[in-house]
Amino acid sequence: MVRERDLTGRGGLIAEGTVVLDQLLRSRRFRPRSLLVLPARLDGLSERLARLPRDVPVYVAESAVFDRIAGFPVHRGVLAYAERHEEASDPLSGLREAAEGGGTVVVACGLSNHDNMGALFRNASVFGAAAVLLDDRCCDPLYRKAIRVSVGTVLTLPFVRLGSAGEIWRSLEELGFEALALSPAGTSDLRDLRSGPPRALFLGTEGEGLGEAFLRRHRSLRVAMASGLDSLNVATCAAIVLHRLYELRNP
Amino acid sequence: MVRERDLTGRGGLIAEGTVVLDQLLRSRRFRPRSLLVLPARLDGLSERLARLPRDVPVYVAESAVFDRIAGFPVHRGVLAYAERHEEASDPLSGLREAAEGGGTVVVACGLSNHDNMGALFRNASVFGAAAVLLDDRCCDPLYRKAIRVSVGTVLTLPFVRLGSAGEIWRSLEELGFEALALSPAGTSDLRDLRSGPPRALFLGTEGEGLGEAFLRRHRSLRVAMASGLDSLNVATCAAIVLHRLYELRNP
Repeated sequence: MVRERDLTGRGGLIAEGTVVLDQLLRSRRFRPRSLLVLPARLDGLSERLARLPRDVPVYVAESAVFDRIAGFPVHRGVLAYAERHEEASDPLSGLREAAEGGGTVVVACGLSNHDNMGALFRNASVFGAAAVLLDDRCCDPLYRKAIRVSVGTVLTLPFVRLGSAGEIWRSLEELGFEALALSPAGTSDLRDLRSGPPRALFLGTEGEGLGEAFLRRHRSLRVAMASGLDSLNVATCAAIVLHRLYELRNP
Repeated sequence: MVRERDLTGRGGLIAEGTVVLDQLLRSRRFRPRSLLVLPARLDGLSERLARLPRDVPVYVAESAVFDRIAGFPVHRGVLAYAERHEEASDPLSGLREAAEGGGTVVVACGLSNHDNMGALFRNASVFGAAAVLLDDRCCDPLYRKAIRVSVGTVLTLPFVRLGSAGEIWRSLEELGFEALALSPAGTSDLRDLRSGPPRALFLGTEGEGLGEAFLRRHRSLRVAMASGLDSLNVATCAAIVLHRLYELRNP
């Protein structure tokens, strides 16, 4: 049986379904090592299977065997085991390029929920963020649920884990990024944001948000909401800001 | 054991946790009929319990009994059984008011996923939509998972189920609404939207979106995205548009 904890320590991961498999096949950071496919899905997958490197075995198993190997009921009929490319380039190298191109990066601090992590990657990818930076309290984006919710974008959007929010900020500051710290109590309204330097969008934990000290030191940004609720989901809130930043970069 | 299917036919529902309970206590459309609470949570809940109507019993049970009654492991230590107010006002009556006030309503067509349904209500509520209208193919917003993901807003934001998208449109057209049909292939870009008449935001199914015939007949709206992905979650996409409409209504 595939155990999540046996995989993640080795940089391994499980990709489920064709949408995620497509991202895996596009990925320059991860490569498939083996596939497990239901017999009934083989025909529909033939084009994708033809694009696999020659040394990647495709195992075919009936549903009952399939579910026992996976350790959970598999609805999508295709699983890939993948590993990080050893020669994958340093994800930080893309940050300099993003900075020079006026791009956006996302910094997640203390994001502990795999659904939110996956949704954040999906939204960052849809709106063309250059990378996601994670502080050391974040959950693992390569966890199965996060991969699925991200529709596989954790495999294609560069990310790196880099200590505390303050440490991450020091790396970004040198490259010319402006920090935008998202908070319901932010002092700037999103609608007043104009195009400008490359931006690093900092997001806090689901519960407590970013620390007060961090918010005081940086430009803090709020999304206007109807009264009575300050309760947008963190990934949804990020989507609204990332969409606006995308509009500003592409007028 | 509480069975979802035994409840929903009677207009009954299960509210889990304090966040949802707070919405239930604010709701004018639903009322609590009984509560089930873990002993350890009683003190923390005392203020809320004091606000319950006198005829609502509060049952206290240890964890093992609690989970057996609920039929699932309960992490939040408080469950409420609630029912629709018989005298609750017609949710359609609010539509005329919304139309006169230049407000926004959301129309969901074929939304079959409870997470997306819950997230849609949460976003509609956060950005001050007046109501959610559901076509007859939508899943039930009063399903437990949808209630939880909505952070209880399905209990406070008026909604009604009203036949097909076309039938819903005929009700709204009479009241002076403009239809905005959300689609990745929309002919208007969200950034070109200006303040105007009251808007009805139509959202399609997760898979296929709104029908082509419907899109041809109405103003269709797209959200700008980076190339290569047209894959924003439907509730997230709605949040981006609802936020913009909120900004336009509150300049």
